[in-house]
Amino acid sequence: MRGLTRYLPVLDWGRHYDRTTLSADLLAAVIVTIMLIPQSLAYAMLAGLPAEVGVYASILPIVGYAIFGTSRTLAVGPVAVVSLMTAAAIARTGAEGEAALAVALVLALLSGLMLLAAGVMKLGFLANFLPHPVTAGFITASAFLIAGSQLGNVLGVKLSGDTLIELGEGLFAALGGVNPVTAAIGVGTLAFLFWARSRLKPLLRRLGLGPRLADALTKAAPILAVAVTSALAWGLDLGSQGVALVGSVAGGLPPLTLPALSLDLVRELALPALLISLVGFVESVSVGQTLAAKRRQRIEPDQELMGLGAANIAASFTGGMPVTGGFARSIVNFDAGAATQAAGLFTALGLLMTALFLTPLLAFLPKATLAAMIIVAVLGLVNLRILAQAWSYSRTDFAAVALTILVTLGAGVEAGLVVGVLVSLVAHLHATSRPHIAEVGHIPGTHHFRNVLRHEVVTDPSLLSIRVDERLYFANARFLEDYLLTRIAEMPGLRHVVLLCSAVNDVDLSAAESLLALNQRLKDAGVTLHLSEVKGPVMDKLAKSHLPQALTGKIYLSQVDAVRDLAPSIAPPPLQGVA
Amino acid sequence: MRGLTRYLPVLDWGRHYDRTTLSADLLAAVIVTIMLIPQSLAYAMLAGLPAEVGVYASILPIVGYAIFGTSRTLAVGPVAVVSLMTAAAIARTGAEGEAALAVALVLALLSGLMLLAAGVMKLGFLANFLPHPVTAGFITASAFLIAGSQLGNVLGVKLSGDTLIELGEGLFAALGGVNPVTAAIGVGTLAFLFWARSRLKPLLRRLGLGPRLADALTKAAPILAVAVTSALAWGLDLGSQGVALVGSVAGGLPPLTLPALSLDLVRELALPALLISLVGFVESVSVGQTLAAKRRQRIEPDQELMGLGAANIAASFTGGMPVTGGFARSIVNFDAGAATQAAGLFTALGLLMTALFLTPLLAFLPKATLAAMIIVAVLGLVNLRILAQAWSYSRTDFAAVALTILVTLGAGVEAGLVVGVLVSLVAHLHATSRPHIAEVGHIPGTHHFRNVLRHEVVTDPSLLSIRVDERLYFANARFLEDYLLTRIAEMPGLRHVVLLCSAVNDVDLSAAESLLALNQRLKDAGVTLHLSEVKGPVMDKLAKSHLPQALTGKIYLSQVDAVRDLAPSIAPPPLQGVA
Repeated sequence: MRGLTRYLPVLDWGRHYDRTTLSADLLAAVIVTIMLIPQSLAYAMLAGLPAEVGVYASILPIVGYAIFGTSRTLAVGPVAVVSLMTAAAIARTGAEGEAALAVALVLALLSGLMLLAAGVMKLGFLANFLPHPVTAGFITASAFLIAGSQLGNVLGVKLSGDTLIELGEGLFAALGGVNPVTAAIGVGTLAFLFWARSRLKPLLRRLGLGPRLADALTKAAPILAVAVTSALAWGLDLGSQGVALVGSVAGGLPPLTLPALSLDLVRELALPALLISLVGFVESVSVGQTLAAKRRQRIEPDQELMGLGAANIAASFTGGMPVTGGFARSIVNFDAGAATQAAGLFTALGLLMTALFLTPLLAFLPKATLAAMIIVAVLGLVNLRILAQAWSYSRTDFAAVALTILVTLGAGVEAGLVVGVLVSLVAHLHATSRPHIAEVGHIPGTHHFRNVLRHEVVTDPSLLSIRVDERLYFANARFLEDYLLTRIAEMPGLRHVVLLCSAVNDVDLSAAESLLALNQRLKDAGVTLHLSEVKGPVMDKLAKSHLPQALTGKIYLSQVDAVRDLAPSIAPPPLQGVA
Repeated sequence: MRGLTRYLPVLDWGRHYDRTTLSADLLAAVIVTIMLIPQSLAYAMLAGLPAEVGVYASILPIVGYAIFGTSRTLAVGPVAVVSLMTAAAIARTGAEGEAALAVALVLALLSGLMLLAAGVMKLGFLANFLPHPVTAGFITASAFLIAGSQLGNVLGVKLSGDTLIELGEGLFAALGGVNPVTAAIGVGTLAFLFWARSRLKPLLRRLGLGPRLADALTKAAPILAVAVTSALAWGLDLGSQGVALVGSVAGGLPPLTLPALSLDLVRELALPALLISLVGFVESVSVGQTLAAKRRQRIEPDQELMGLGAANIAASFTGGMPVTGGFARSIVNFDAGAATQAAGLFTALGLLMTALFLTPLLAFLPKATLAAMIIVAVLGLVNLRILAQAWSYSRTDFAAVALTILVTLGAGVEAGLVVGVLVSLVAHLHATSRPHIAEVGHIPGTHHFRNVLRHEVVTDPSLLSIRVDERLYFANARFLEDYLLTRIAEMPGLRHVVLLCSAVNDVDLSAAESLLALNQRLKDAGVTLHLSEVKGPVMDKLAKSHLPQALTGKIYLSQVDAVRDLAPSIAPPPLQGVA
C-alpha cells in the first residue's frame, strides 16, 4: 500500500469492489446485525448506560473503522471487557444517569484521540508490552467480574461493585429480595443458552439439517431467547410483576453529541481511557491478525490504531460509548463470508434501521435475558488453563498471570491490568540483572564450546572461558564483575579469561565502564582479559570506548581462534582442506 | 567470613588488632578529624541546619558504621550531595528552624531503616539500577546547584532555591545587597583555595619540602583559611559589619534525640528518604569498592547496607542528619594509612573532643569561608566529560545523561534522579522490544556463520538463517513474527527458516506462544521452521511448551548441523580426523 491508500484503506478495497463481494458482504451483514442487536443492548447495560447507547455505538463507529481500518472482517462495537472497564471508570467519577452518559462520551473521545495519536506516532508496538499471559489472566478475571455483576439482573436484585468481594457481599445481602419471576426467566434463559451452546447443533444435525444451517440456527439461539422472553413479558404483563424490562428505547437517528470536556474530568479519566485504549487495541489486533492470517491477508497495527481511533471519536459524537473490535462478532462476520469492510458498513445500516424502526419491539425485553446472554458469552472467554500452562512453563510467567487474576478480582480491572504489566516488567528487569553465566569448554572433535556443567568438554586450568547470556547494561554490569572476581580468587593457576560474547547483544556505557574496571582488576591480579565472538553492532560501540586500547588481551573473531592462541593443547583440529 | 563475623565485621578486624595497626589508624584519624571539622559544619549549613548538627552527625554514625560496615577505610559523615538532597526534602515540608532539625532526624531514621531493611533482604543489587552515566550526570548537576546555593553566603546575600533558575533569579535580585566585606572574605577564600589546589604543592616542593609534607600542607589549606578568616573576624570585629559568622555552636555531648514520627511526615518524606538512601549507598559503595580493590580487599554490598543503615539510625538518635561514605574524606583516610575501621572510631573520638572543647573557637568563623570551601570541594565533583563520552558512545546513554543534568538543574535533585533512572529503563525496554536481527550466511572454510551484510558469506535461496540478538519476551515476540512474515513474502524459493538462537537468552511464555503461531503461519506458507544452537536453560523451558512437538522442523545442536542437513551444497567441510 502506498501514499494515501496506506492511510485510507477504503481507497484500496473500494476500488476493486464488485458484485460477488457485495453479495458476500450483504449476507454477512444480515447475520451480524441480528447478533448485534441484543449484544449492543446488553453491553450498554453492562456499562451502566441506557440500552440505546449500545445501538448508537454500533452505527457510526463501524463506518469510521471501515474507512480507516485495515482488517477486512473485524466487527467493531461495544465489547464485554471494555464495557466493564467503562462501568468502572464511570463509577470512579460517581456519575449516574445523564451524567454517566456524558462520562462515557468523554471516555470514548479521549480513548479515540489517544489511539489516533498513537497511530500517527506509530506506537503500535506498545501493545506488545501487554504480555500474553497477563492478557489471558486479565480477560479471564474480567469475565468472572462481568458474570458476577450480571447475576443481579438474572435474579432481579440490585447488585453493584467493582471487585469480586463487593459483588459477593452485595449478592449475599440481596438474596432475600430475589424476584422469583425474574429469576425464573433469567435462570431459564441461562440454562437454555448453555444447553444450546453444547447440545443444539448435534441435535439439529441428528434431525437431518445441513451443517451450515445447523450452525446458523445454533448461533441464533440468543435471538430465540430474546423473542420468547419478550413475548412472555408482553403476553403475561411481567413488567407489573416486578420483572425489569429494557423499557422504552429511544428510537430514531443517533443524536449528535458534544462530549463535555472539563480539565478535571480529563485528568480523572486519562488513566482509564489509556487502559481502555490499550486493552481495546490488543483485543482488536489479536482478533484481526488471527482472521487476516487465515486468508493470507495482513493488518497494519499502526493503521489499526487510526481505525479504532476514528471509531471511538465517531462514538463520542453520536451518543455512543467506547468501542473496539469484538472477538465473537468478528468470527461470526468472517465465518458468514464477509469479504471487505463494506460488510461493516451494511451492518451499520442494519443497526440504523433497528434504531429507526425496531426499538418499540425491544421495550418488553427482560433485562434478565440480556444478563443471561452476557454471562454465557463472557464465560466463553474464561481461560483457566493459562494458569496451569504458565505454572509448568515458568514461575515468573505464573506469578504474572496469578497476580493479574487476583488483583483484577480483588481490586478491579484497572489495578489488575497495571499490576500485571508492572510485575512482568519488573520480572524481566530482575532476570536480566542477574544473567545466566556459563563456563564453557571445548567439545572434542568439533568447533563447539559449551557449558561445562551440561556437556563433556575439555578445559585448561590456565584459561577460563565465560559465556554471559545477556546484553550487558547498567543493571547487570557489576554482577559480571562480582562473578568474575569471585571466580578468579578460586583459580590460582589462571592466566587468561575469555569473555565469549556470542550472546551479548549490547554493551551500554555503564557496562563498558564496568568492563574497563574489570580489565584493570584482572590486570592487578596478573590475569589477561580477552573477548571473543563480539557481534558487529556491539563491536561498533565498544570501538568508541577506551576498551579496545586498554584491554590487556585481544578481541578474537571466534572462540576457536582464542583457544588456539591461548591454550593450544586443547585447541580444536583445523577443517579439512584448510591450512 | 562466616557466621556472626559476616554480620559483625568488627569481630573479624577487632580480633587481629595490634600496635602497628593502632599507630596507622591513629595518624589517619588525626588528619581526617582536622579535615572533618570545617566540612561537617559546612555540610550542615548546606542542608540548612545549625552547624553543630554536622559535628554530631560525624560522631556516633561513624561508630555505627565501624561495627557493621565492611570497608576498612570508608569515612562516614555528612556529604555534599546528600546534604543538598536533605535541604530539598526539608524545603518540601516547609519546615524551618527547630522544625527543620526534626525533619532531618526523621529523614535519617527513615533512610537508616530503609538501608537496614534492604540489607536484610539482600537488595544490594538494586543499586545497579542507577546507571553510571546517570549517577555522573546527577552528581555534576548537583554540584552546580550546591555551588550556586553557596554563592549567596560567599557574597553575603540571602539566596534560596531548588533549581538553577530559582537560584539565578534570586542572585540577580539580591546583587544590589551584596555585603562588600563578606564578599571580600568569600571571594578571597575562594581564590586562595582554587590557587592552593593547583599551585600550592608545586610551590612547596620548589621551596624544598618533601613530597608527603607538601601534600599534607596542601590538604591543610582549608584549615589555614578557617584559621585566618576566623582570626580576622575576631580581630576586626567583622560580625558588627554585617559579616555572617557561624556564631555560638552548641558544645557538649551529642544530644539524645527521638525522631518525631508522624504518619503524614513519613508519607511526605518516604520518597526523598528512598532517593537519599539510594544515592548515599551508590556513592558509598563505589568509593568503598575502589579503595578496597587497591589493597585486594573486598566489600560486601549487602553488609554495607547494614553499616550505612546503622550509621543513619545512630545519626537520627544523636541530633544528626543523613550521612553516607564520603569520597574526598575516604581517600584522605586511605592515603593517610588507615588500616581498619578503628581509624573511624578515633575520628569519632576526635570530633567528640571538638564538640566538647573546640566549639567556642568556631564562633568567629565566617559563613563565607565555609561556603567557599563547599564550592571548591563540589566543583571537583563536576564531570562534564561524561557528556562527550556518552555522546560518542551512544545516543541513548547521552540522552540519559543530558536529561538527568537538565532535569536536576531545572526541576531539582529528586526529579532529576527519578527521570534519569526512568529514561534509562525505558530506553532499555525500547531497545529490547526492537531487537537486532541478522540474516547469517556461512563463511567459507570455517564453521562460522555471520551477518550477510558485514561478511563475505555464502547462502542458499531455499534456506533463510536468522540470528535474533535478544532474549525473546513479550515486548519483542511479535516483532520477530512480523519481521519473518515480511521476509518470507520476498523469498519465493524459500523452503526452510532456521532461527539461530545463540543470542536468545530466554524465551518467556508470550514468546513461546508467538513462536508457535509463527510455526503455524510458516507451515501455511509451505516453509519449515527449525531452531539451532538453543542454549541449555532456554531448551529446558521450551521443552515444557508444545513447541518441540508442534515444530515443523528440527532443533539442531549447531548451525553447522542445520546447514549440512538442509542445504548440503553450502555446508562447511568436516574437521580433520573427524568422520
